[in-house]
Amino acid sequence: MDVSIIAIGDELLIGQVTDTNSGWIARHLSPLGWNVHTVRVVADDSEEIFKAIDESFAETNIVLCTGGLGPTKDDITKPTLCRYFGGELVYDEATARNVQEVVDTRHLKMNPLTAAQANVPSSCRVIQNKVGTAPLMWFEKDGKVLVSMPGVPFETETMMELEVIPQLLKHFSVNDHIVYRTFIVIDYSESVLAIKLDEFERQMPDYIHLAYLPKPGVIRLRLTGTSKDEAKIIADMDRLSAQLHDILGDAIVCSEDKSLSEILGIKLREKGLTVASAESCTGGNIAHQITEIAGSSEYFVGTVVSYCNRVKNALLKVPNEILDTVGAVSQETAEQMSRGVSELLGTDCAMSTTGIAGPGGAEPGKPVGTVWIAAKYGDKLVSECFHFPGSRDRVIDRATTTAIIMLLKLLK
Amino acid sequence: MDVSIIAIGDELLIGQVTDTNSGWIARHLSPLGWNVHTVRVVADDSEEIFKAIDESFAETNIVLCTGGLGPTKDDITKPTLCRYFGGELVYDEATARNVQEVVDTRHLKMNPLTAAQANVPSSCRVIQNKVGTAPLMWFEKDGKVLVSMPGVPFETETMMELEVIPQLLKHFSVNDHIVYRTFIVIDYSESVLAIKLDEFERQMPDYIHLAYLPKPGVIRLRLTGTSKDEAKIIADMDRLSAQLHDILGDAIVCSEDKSLSEILGIKLREKGLTVASAESCTGGNIAHQITEIAGSSEYFVGTVVSYCNRVKNALLKVPNEILDTVGAVSQETAEQMSRGVSELLGTDCAMSTTGIAGPGGAEPGKPVGTVWIAAKYGDKLVSECFHFPGSRDRVIDRATTTAIIMLLKLLK
Repeated sequence: MDVSIIAIGDELLIGQVTDTNSGWIARHLSPLGWNVHTVRVVADDSEEIFKAIDESFAETNIVLCTGGLGPTKDDITKPTLCRYFGGELVYDEATARNVQEVVDTRHLKMNPLTAAQANVPSSCRVIQNKVGTAPLMWFEKDGKVLVSMPGVPFETETMMELEVIPQLLKHFSVNDHIVYRTFIVIDYSESVLAIKLDEFERQMPDYIHLAYLPKPGVIRLRLTGTSKDEAKIIADMDRLSAQLHDILGDAIVCSEDKSLSEILGIKLREKGLTVASAESCTGGNIAHQITEIAGSSEYFVGTVVSYCNRVKNALLKVPNEILDTVGAVSQETAEQMSRGVSELLGTDCAMSTTGIAGPGGAEPGKPVGTVWIAAKYGDKLVSECFHFPGSRDRVIDRATTTAIIMLLKLLK
Repeated sequence: MDVSIIAIGDELLIGQVTDTNSGWIARHLSPLGWNVHTVRVVADDSEEIFKAIDESFAETNIVLCTGGLGPTKDDITKPTLCRYFGGELVYDEATARNVQEVVDTRHLKMNPLTAAQANVPSSCRVIQNKVGTAPLMWFEKDGKVLVSMPGVPFETETMMELEVIPQLLKHFSVNDHIVYRTFIVIDYSESVLAIKLDEFERQMPDYIHLAYLPKPGVIRLRLTGTSKDEAKIIADMDRLSAQLHDILGDAIVCSEDKSLSEILGIKLREKGLTVASAESCTGGNIAHQITEIAGSSEYFVGTVVSYCNRVKNALLKVPNEILDTVGAVSQETAEQMSRGVSELLGTDCAMSTTGIAGPGGAEPGKPVGTVWIAAKYGDKLVSECFHFPGSRDRVIDRATTTAIIMLLKLLK
């Protein structure tokens, strides 16, 4: 079943807010065998919304709209939906009660604008929003369905899971099965990997497709198969997965679509190990990535972000002679940071980074992007110097990813 | 001048990658008075790309495409562009030399797939990619322009700035001026703010528009004016800005579109102060947000992420009696974490967080989302307990934002 998405909002088109709802929806519909056909991002403009609905219904029978439902005056979605589906805005008792409940739960005061959320098109069926004041609206026309949802990601995500997906599944019946398999691959560039997999790709069944999804430091390989015969896809996918493992060996660090910090967490938990980080140029981003994973408190003990040399010396025991001679951005410093934080916090494993994220701070022989990274597991300690290209964000991102990969390899 | 964007890639439509290019492009075209009309996200599918180009050219004279240009087999953009604009794929000497240079700079080895990047449609003018192997392509047809760019954000961003924007400005002449003013507002919910600004909005000139852009803990207010008379917009904007400051006072923490961590950095630098953080449930995210800002080493000293109680006691001097009685998620712990990290790292200011990010870890009387936050500036120390709704990500995000706002208020 194909779905179109319309994301509504001026803020999306001037780049002040990034549309994350569409990706979330896609990630959660795919496993059900539903396919996002197109995403349209349009302005808070009645004509544009109208046109986008028309274009979307020409392609798919299901249209999911996000955004344009807040209490303030820049929102014109509801009147436009009235124009498209007929009816007029009417005050709805049940919605008013739900808005009042949400306001009470949040210890807020009701005000006229929030109260006006209870006005809904008479042509829709309301799905009450359990986590926000903007009601969701279900419209039907000529066998097609449009669901209008708020733009706040938390509200869209919660209500998609609780109500919209179950109701869509009930309303439509799915014929095609889509199966995905994702592999997280390190140590390859995209083109070297493609050459390595040339023969493999040639013998793949026609109905299965291989995609390369490069991210800094890793490539996600994704097999996609679509067929009415689910057992056949699964059998073919199992065979192709086994072949990929034969060809790529240890370069596949995970056979599920997981982040590197999730993969690290699984490894640490399997082995019953603890970890800490000592971060200079990554500024806490390694810790942040690790602690984004639920349950990370089982293996993550803590971090010292040592942005100034005084902290590197006092807490991580990097000798001042080292800092004064070879400097903070050096192999000696990176290695002692890993040893130091591991001793200070009493962990089995550690990662450390020290480098120049830029745009300022370059030194003779150490251009922006120079980063020393170390990883430690028990008595094993490895370190390496990298030169990452690009902006500050990108250097921080690459250094974080690389530190996690270095520890992952030590744990093999 | 209006621009349409087409983002190409299956990975975008199954949600494995989020399209950040469109937002980046929008943010960088807006100040030039250029307006992104619509964004279309389409699959790696020749028919869909073809149709999206048609639809986009029906709306605007400029179309910017990102994605679909990698060296691997899932890319079909170049042949589709040949079909749309005529011509055929031809080997281009200058492009081949550029690809070789990029490969050499990165210390990579040339391979047949990367070499094939030198095949380009004969109907385009190539813009050499200085930071990647996929060439950019400029097409013209009936006075309209399409520029095809790689999907890797770093490459798109670099080449947009270096070549695409300057070449577009030269090729087209702009008539309308668009002026934006953005205000970062704290301490208001969206609807309460809208009521407060009701009278203000009513007396605004018709050609100026006010938008509410809520993010966790802050609302960005954006005034947009479009007119041929630039002096008039600027005068009106100045007047409206002064009115907004009169109405909202200290709730406006910044009159530019800056992140809270940028605003904090500016305040700290003005006053010549240093800062540290002690983080439990935010897991290093405060440090990460602070260090994303270039030049943060001038005021940021470091962080202790104390994910386990042992670290809270050993490094931050939270007494074990406190941890054993009222517990880690308590006012006493939050306050001592701020005091402790400020003493340990010798800083003027500090922020600290301790709470339950979820989904596990709830205790009697302390449900998921309970977070104690403290902020310290010299002798002043404030702390408060919050109950943030939503997922782990969201709790971490809100706690981070709230800690920064608490310190910002102390620094007023």
